[in-house]
Amino acid sequence: MNLTTVREIYKNREQYLSQEISVGGWVRSIRDSKAFGFIVVSDGSYFETLQIVYHDTMPNFDEICKLNVGAAIIVKGTLVATPEAKQPFEIQATEVTVEGPSASDYPLQKKRHSFEYLRTISHLRPRTNTFQAVFRVRSLIAYAIHQYFQERDFVYVHTPLITASDCEGAGEMFQVTTLDLDNIPKTEDGAVDFSQDFFNKPTSLTVSGQLNGETYAMAFRNIYTFGPTFRAENSNTTRHAAEFWMIEPEMAFADLDDNMALAEGMLKYVIRYVLEHAPEEMNFFNQFVDKGLLERLNGVLNSEFGHVTYTEAIKILEEHNDAFEYKVFWGCDLQTEHERYLTEEVYKKPLFVTDYPKEIKAFYMKLNDDNKTVAAMDCLVPGIGEIIGGSQREDNYDKLLSRMEELGLKPEDYEFYLDLRKYGSTRHSGFGLGFERCVMYLTGMGNIRDVIPFPRTVNNCDL
Amino acid sequence: MNLTTVREIYKNREQYLSQEISVGGWVRSIRDSKAFGFIVVSDGSYFETLQIVYHDTMPNFDEICKLNVGAAIIVKGTLVATPEAKQPFEIQATEVTVEGPSASDYPLQKKRHSFEYLRTISHLRPRTNTFQAVFRVRSLIAYAIHQYFQERDFVYVHTPLITASDCEGAGEMFQVTTLDLDNIPKTEDGAVDFSQDFFNKPTSLTVSGQLNGETYAMAFRNIYTFGPTFRAENSNTTRHAAEFWMIEPEMAFADLDDNMALAEGMLKYVIRYVLEHAPEEMNFFNQFVDKGLLERLNGVLNSEFGHVTYTEAIKILEEHNDAFEYKVFWGCDLQTEHERYLTEEVYKKPLFVTDYPKEIKAFYMKLNDDNKTVAAMDCLVPGIGEIIGGSQREDNYDKLLSRMEELGLKPEDYEFYLDLRKYGSTRHSGFGLGFERCVMYLTGMGNIRDVIPFPRTVNNCDL
Repeated sequence: MNLTTVREIYKNREQYLSQEISVGGWVRSIRDSKAFGFIVVSDGSYFETLQIVYHDTMPNFDEICKLNVGAAIIVKGTLVATPEAKQPFEIQATEVTVEGPSASDYPLQKKRHSFEYLRTISHLRPRTNTFQAVFRVRSLIAYAIHQYFQERDFVYVHTPLITASDCEGAGEMFQVTTLDLDNIPKTEDGAVDFSQDFFNKPTSLTVSGQLNGETYAMAFRNIYTFGPTFRAENSNTTRHAAEFWMIEPEMAFADLDDNMALAEGMLKYVIRYVLEHAPEEMNFFNQFVDKGLLERLNGVLNSEFGHVTYTEAIKILEEHNDAFEYKVFWGCDLQTEHERYLTEEVYKKPLFVTDYPKEIKAFYMKLNDDNKTVAAMDCLVPGIGEIIGGSQREDNYDKLLSRMEELGLKPEDYEFYLDLRKYGSTRHSGFGLGFERCVMYLTGMGNIRDVIPFPRTVNNCDL
Repeated sequence: MNLTTVREIYKNREQYLSQEISVGGWVRSIRDSKAFGFIVVSDGSYFETLQIVYHDTMPNFDEICKLNVGAAIIVKGTLVATPEAKQPFEIQATEVTVEGPSASDYPLQKKRHSFEYLRTISHLRPRTNTFQAVFRVRSLIAYAIHQYFQERDFVYVHTPLITASDCEGAGEMFQVTTLDLDNIPKTEDGAVDFSQDFFNKPTSLTVSGQLNGETYAMAFRNIYTFGPTFRAENSNTTRHAAEFWMIEPEMAFADLDDNMALAEGMLKYVIRYVLEHAPEEMNFFNQFVDKGLLERLNGVLNSEFGHVTYTEAIKILEEHNDAFEYKVFWGCDLQTEHERYLTEEVYKKPLFVTDYPKEIKAFYMKLNDDNKTVAAMDCLVPGIGEIIGGSQREDNYDKLLSRMEELGLKPEDYEFYLDLRKYGSTRHSGFGLGFERCVMYLTGMGNIRDVIPFPRTVNNCDL
């Protein structure tokens, strides 16, 4: 079909003015007087809408007047400049064809609906202003991340979703099975007979692609993953989803400084990309969702990220322990309140905290010479707290093995991972960025359910 | 670390010649004579390798001589042109630092290993020439697909992986559960008590994001998905994996012709992108994996895809029924042998077959006026057969409902999908591209296990 999009019209208005064009879209609002009427149309290609003027000279004038919000129409007409009006131009229609009417019980009327209500109609909410903005920006952020890494010749690796290993020894995982749950087959000694399962063993959904990613970094030098990860955590918060996307770059011949430079470069790149490619959406967020958003993001673009060790950070925070629900002490994990205090009150810009106690970090992080801390880094940003977590990896076979044994991990489960330290080991580093947290950060949206098209949380798996 | 990559050296050789640079990489081969030696190094950034010359003037000359294939080193030295030699330049080293040696049982020696063997060491095989080429090209194809759609303002939608619905009423799905398999909770009447499961109901892994994707196309007009999908099919072939990635674009205000134009444009775009960005890898495939590859791909670039209806195609094929294992007749599903005959022997180029009998296609495809066929299209390519399957979707509420009832689908399970036909329905179309099949097509690799980093197939879920 030879239709012009609203985006094309706005981007190349000079070319289309006074021309006859056809546009397809959905009715956002409609009002008529006796001899003519106005329809505001969105075609989803652009945040702004387009005004259509129609007249009673049309044979289907009555049909048009009766259209409801949400109806799909195709309009033929001439694009006319309207310098006196709110909108820059409108279409003087010669034909309005109804593709599909909208039933009178259409759940989205021309009024403000609460986010809570809109979550109950996740198949329709992308038709609203807020979710048009959220999900277009989500798409742009995803692409900007790919572009950032591909321009730097990172290889995109699809690490597996179904896994037989438990990456970090971490947390609650979803089991994946083809066994008949009504009638689980058992072995002679009464255990589940996984030899009858699809993969011949117990499997679950991955919580991280990092360990697999490292194997590819040791072949391609610079790689990144970008895929779904899963947590079966029973936590009903505004920041946790059971299914979310992660980006995990990994670089060989790279230390913690290289890692932080990559992370800072990535965040700035993505912010710049979105401000450039979705200015209408970003202004909308700044006006209606989070008033300080643009100032904050521009602040990030214009600052060098701060750097502080965990030990120094604890000293700073201890001086303000009165202000915190959880008091800090050397060895404690930082809570969001501490992270936000550091980045918002002390440094007033994004901040890397490095060299955490080994006890509160994962087994694969590189032990520092002090034997107490590891070469970890968390990136904290104003308004959120931690947005990125990463580290240099332990590349010494013996140290890695002994750390695994200390923590009770079975070396035979990690043979492939130990192999990387046996055959051409080299310093290497990487980090993880929770994609949804990044979308929340860039849009100002406060609930993770509102930045995922069809969110999965405890007791919620609709559509 | 301030290291120059092998890719940078090859791309900007003039800039680096006669300069002192440092390079990190892994030993591909090493040989020494009395006073000096040669190391061929790969750093994974580029398909070509780099030759290093080292001398017995170095304090660690003996250590270097003893290095094994696979060892990680950092080399400092001067890049020197070698116009007489096989390689265009080499590094005259002043320092060779061993980052990590490689144990003597390194499984990859300088000889040809079979693909079967390499599948048993999926964490090391990306270090070989073939898999360096496969997985860099896989990464480039993924990016080219994103670029194609983003340049056209398609919105990238992450449709959910965990689902409570069974998209096409199709096939074997993996169940997802947090129930204790050792001790499945039961209700009073003996059924599995899913109220105790994480999502409060039975859930499984998605087989397609299409239906969810359509809801976003009816808001954004043009969207695409690119994510993992799953089939618990017990089929042990070279073309089936339990976990694979799919691309599913969907366009509103678009008919079957728009759909085919989008698919043809995408395939050509991706081929062109890969030929331009990975010429070394593509030449390697053409030389060592599939001798007709480049000729075939260039043929695609330079041809308009053919178009034939299913009914016409059956007439053509019936004349050659002698040649087929499965004889064709109107109403039968096309087998790979038929598809390949059409595209390779009859049309000798990529081909769209359209308007299939409704009985062999999915319920959501648009019924044609003949009431017998649907507005479906399969794209067939030489060497593979079907690579893309798509259709215009049924946008008429009543027709969709009656088709669902004919097939015994419960309308209440598809309420959200029916809503799209109730509130502003419009003609719309989309297709699905199996990403791995696309990678096989562009590389000439014959087994899907060799184009997935860590493949999942029946009884196989390693690493």
